Amino acid sequence: MSVILGSSRENGNSETLARRVCEGIDVEWITLSEKNIHPIVDQRHTENGFDPVDDDYEDVIQQVMDSDILIFSTPLYWYGMSGHMKNFVDRWSQSLRNTAYDFKGKMKGKPAYVIISGGESAKIKGLPLVQQFQYIFEFMNMKFAGYIIGRGSKPGEVLNDEVALQEADHLNRMLKSRG
Amino acid sequence: MSVILGSSRENGNSETLARRVCEGIDVEWITLSEKNIHPIVDQRHTENGFDPVDDDYEDVIQQVMDSDILIFSTPLYWYGMSGHMKNFVDRWSQSLRNTAYDFKGKMKGKPAYVIISGGESAKIKGLPLVQQFQYIFEFMNMKFAGYIIGRGSKPGEVLNDEVALQEADHLNRMLKSRG
Amino acid sequence: MSVILGSSRENGNSETLARRVCEGIDVEWITLSEKNIHPIVDQRHTENGFDPVDDDYEDVIQQVMDSDILIFSTPLYWYGMSGHMKNFVDRWSQSLRNTAYDFKGKMKGKPAYVIISGGESAKIKGLPLVQQFQYIFEFMNMKFAGYIIGRGSKPGEVLNDEVALQEADHLNRMLKSRG
Amino acid sequence: MSVILGSSRENGNSETLARRVCEGIDVEWITLSEKNIHPIVDQRHTENGFDPVDDDYEDVIQQVMDSDILIFSTPLYWYGMSGHMKNFVDRWSQSLRNTAYDFKGKMKGKPAYVIISGGESAKIKGLPLVQQFQYIFEFMNMKFAGYIIGRGSKPGEVLNDEVALQEADHLNRMLKSRG
Repeated sequence: MSVILGSSRENGNSETLARRVCEGIDVEWITLSEKNIHPIVDQRHTENGFDPVDDDYEDVIQQVMDSDILIFSTPLYWYGMSGHMKNFVDRWSQSLRNTAYDFKGKMKGKPAYVIISGGESAKIKGLPLVQQFQYIFEFMNMKFAGYIIGRGSKPGEVLNDEVALQEADHLNRMLKSRG
Repeated sequence: MSVILGSSRENGNSETLARRVCEGIDVEWITLSEKNIHPIVDQRHTENGFDPVDDDYEDVIQQVMDSDILIFSTPLYWYGMSGHMKNFVDRWSQSLRNTAYDFKGKMKGKPAYVIISGGESAKIKGLPLVQQFQYIFEFMNMKFAGYIIGRGSKPGEVLNDEVALQEADHLNRMLKSRG
Repeated sequence: MSVILGSSRENGNSETLARRVCEGIDVEWITLSEKNIHPIVDQRHTENGFDPVDDDYEDVIQQVMDSDILIFSTPLYWYGMSGHMKNFVDRWSQSLRNTAYDFKGKMKGKPAYVIISGGESAKIKGLPLVQQFQYIFEFMNMKFAGYIIGRGSKPGEVLNDEVALQEADHLNRMLKSRG
Repeated sequence: MSVILGSSRENGNSETLARRVCEGIDVEWITLSEKNIHPIVDQRHTENGFDPVDDDYEDVIQQVMDSDILIFSTPLYWYGMSGHMKNFVDRWSQSLRNTAYDFKGKMKGKPAYVIISGGESAKIKGLPLVQQFQYIFEFMNMKFAGYIIGRGSKPGEVLNDEVALQEADHLNRMLKSRG
């Protein structure tokens, strides 16, 4: 099980919520802002396909493919996932063409959770992002197993969002009880 | 008037559509993939605020603030704007705190258009992205003046989307006829 | 405080959830399926405006205007609110033209909650309905104070949705603690 | 080919747009406001299932099942389909249980178009309705073949929406050219 952290600051609210979800569970933490992952160069229609990119993307995607469960944790930046996370996801197009592994096959059926934190209106204005994740997971034949939207901008503020904490604790129990 | 190109390849379909919209019109083209724009480091809640970043962002945002009309042109990557464009928009948070100019004041009331190109299902699965732009423009008090979703993955393919071309031509006439 | 029930059966899951939210609170229950409310006849552009309609609508909308808080509780029927509820809301167009009262003035600022119950995918596929309510409340200058989406098709099934129950209990405490 | 009209007034903008789409094409016009179709009484979980309802629903759904192509034309009422149309669609739940015909089998693969007309903001605020139709068609294994959102409130106003008219004319040509 891996948590993909999209925040660009330490101990942001989306991370706080993700850590609550994972309390007492053995997970791999992937902090995208600490990785060097370039935006995609779209070479899908270039004769020789994608050039290899010298960055951390392949390591990260290997870990993602090896995980049985994925949690995408991102602050709501401008009503979408963070640029760090978007850069990472955009590169999936490269993995789709990579013949060294069967990307879609490896991702198929994997349960995925989404944890979002944002300001006052996040529980409404974060919904297009939830729908975007739905389309992403649908395309990959992954299983969109649930999402939590927490309210919090200032550091630690999400700990005042009782509903989000209850949802996090519930997900924690569910994840612990799986075989 | 400026066009902000989010594609990561030359002559992609979103750019093709944008060029059709701007035929015969004097516009500034901002190709984000040719700019060096870092993902944001969120220092909104850091004591001294945002550190200056040594990249092309400030030049680009100056040009954006100086434009009377903005066109955001992006391929639909994983049902969202490209990472290049998201990195750029995320940095707006930094401009909001920048005391050297009044970012919100400068953007207020500016008409903005969105041009999206994507695969077979883009006219449906691009809708969360349209909604995201709506929230972005609403937050900035900009005017969401219209959007076009074109169908096209392979280079040039959008030129087969008659409806999108008609929309582009219509927008072209409207933009030309403004004083 | 009034609860507007859109279900077409007794003790449906959306009603069960609404009753949990309102435990120990004095509320008016408006069961739309027991009211005679005709679909709107759009006479907004007819010379003499809307003809009076001989049904229960005016009684219901009076009660709604007199309520300090509104809860809209509807099953997710075909990914939208029930026809019963839609018929009711459509008639608001008539109230907007009614000179006997100031409909928008009376509704302005009123906090509104939405409770939805639906099948397996309701927490995702109910989101367009949440967005629709957002636009409705925004138009009326009401305050969209929160929503709960519960999972349940068969009678009573929503009582297995622990997260929805926690959200209901939390909302119950909040509503009780208001002055 | 059938057009299902959801408007509650004659010659509304959604009907005007639908008539433009169907110029010179032999279609059945189903004006829901002239039919007697009751809101559903949900008896999915009642021991004996749905009671027969004495209204026009079965005639209409027969015609719908017999059509090779469907066009759903509705004004945007309160950011959703009209109550007339919602009442009709809600009753599909009854057809799903009707053993006299194979509802899902008959609807499977049928191309469906959606035509919406609404006020100034309809091209944005009509998008949740488009998404709702997507989920409806997806559930029924129908093919969501396209949608048009026209701008128009006052009678005839949609005829000023050049883009919508072009889309209508384009769809007209496509429908004419099919075998």
